[in-house]
Formats: sequence, structure tokens, C-alpha cells
Amino acid sequence: MADPLLTRIDHVGIACHDLDAAIERYQTIFGLAVVARETNEEQGVHEAMLAVVAGSYVQLLAPTRPESPVGRFLARRGEGVHHIGYGVEDVESALGSLRGQGVRLVDQRARHGSMGAAIAFLHPSDVGGVLTELVQATP
Amino acid sequence: MADPLLTRIDHVGIACHDLDAAIERYQTIFGLAVVARETNEEQGVHEAMLAVVAGSYVQLLAPTRPESPVGRFLARRGEGVHHIGYGVEDVESALGSLRGQGVRLVDQRARHGSMGAAIAFLHPSDVGGVLTELVQATP
Repeated sequence: MADPLLTRIDHVGIACHDLDAAIERYQTIFGLAVVARETNEEQGVHEAMLAVVAGSYVQLLAPTRPESPVGRFLARRGEGVHHIGYGVEDVESALGSLRGQGVRLVDQRARHGSMGAAIAFLHPSDVGGVLTELVQATP
Repeated sequence: MADPLLTRIDHVGIACHDLDAAIERYQTIFGLAVVARETNEEQGVHEAMLAVVAGSYVQLLAPTRPESPVGRFLARRGEGVHHIGYGVEDVESALGSLRGQGVRLVDQRARHGSMGAAIAFLHPSDVGGVLTELVQATP
């Protein structure tokens, strides 16, 4: 068995059609507060991070354009869980370890994620059909 | 805005065809350890809880029979995220608050969940397409 790679469930990424409506819903029902809101043009998403507790978030994702990954997900599956993000100490080191095991990676190198984190996605095929993100938070 | 109801992301519930194969995969890739394994005949699932960190788990779920909820999910969607579980202090109190807001509940009363927890499911329709579970852990 490998050393534990994961330090926390960082976030649940939820695809939605209307970001404002989704934020309103999660605020009203659960009392969650928005701690960050940004647009990631590279990934084609408008997103909001709502804190469940320190270091664990609901991430609401709306597409900037229909042909973005989240836009295509919505067209195919409708609203719901898009991916799961887990915390890691060092995302490049984690990618190296996973690559060594033959785990299929979406991202060969870390890239920019929410709130300045370094992130990388693993392909769902090797992790039980779950699009899985590794998140190294900013110090 | 309501008071915060949620205390943590308790678990990510992942539907799989073969529980042993899924456990092996999550152990090998991420170094997660199984902390509980049980069969819930009422829900028609064989399940395993793998600790990411104290109080946060990957829950792997395989159907005991094809017509169980997880069996039907697998037939319709394939392997992947089935539901998200959030911690609450008091699940009956949380259900009362949500019922008062008109949130559609799957369970009107708490019932028995993994590792002796009291749990209840909310209907996906009012929470962004996500089958959502509230979890009051055993003390």
C-alpha cells in the first residue's frame, strides 16, 4: 500500500446552469458562505467556493460557453457532481507517484486552480469513474 | 441566511460494480485504509469506508441486487459519484429546519447509516442535482 497521498476532501465540484441561483440555494438551505468567486477562462468556468469548514468547500461551477467541459457535462448529464477534489501536500510529487503506478492523468503538470491552488486532474477511468482533482492549497 | 448546518464533508459515496476491486484501487492509488465494512440490506448495498482523514471518508458502494438504488444507478450512469454526505450536529433538527424551508426530503426521519451514524437523504431536486446525505456521527 502506498503512503497516504490525500490530506482532506478539499471540495465537491457541482455543475450548475445558473451560478447565482446555485449560490443562493446553497446559502439559503445550508447557510454556507461564499469565500471566493472567479472565472477561469482556460477551463471555461465561472465558479464560487462556499466553505463547509476550513479547507473543505462546495465548489459551484457554471460554464462560460456551451462547449467547455462543464458545458458538455451539463448537456450530457444535467446538474450534479462534476468532480471531487482532494488535498495533497505536493501536487507535482503526487503526480509523479501516480504516473509511476500507471494511473491515467488528465494533467501531466500542475496548473492554476481555485484560490491560487496548484491542481491537477486524474482521469476517471482509473479511479472508479470519478473525475478526481488533486489540490495543493496556497500556503 | 440560515445558521451553518454542515460541520464537514463527511464522505463521497462512489458506486462501483465490484467492491473488492474498488477497495484495492483506492488503497493502491491513494494509500487509503478501510476503517469499516458492512452490508446494509435495507439500502441493498455492500459498503466500505476508507478514511481520507478523521471524519472524512471515501465510501465505496456495490449493490446487493440489481434493482437496489445503487444497482439502478450503475445501470443508468455507470460507476461514479452516487451521493455526497455532509456532517451535521443533529440530523433530526436539521431535517426539521430543511422541512420548514420546503426542501424535498427522501427521508422524513433519520435512519441507520454507516458506522452507526444517524443519517437522512435529501432529494437531489432541491440541492442542484446532488443526492445529499446528512450524517450525525456516533459520539
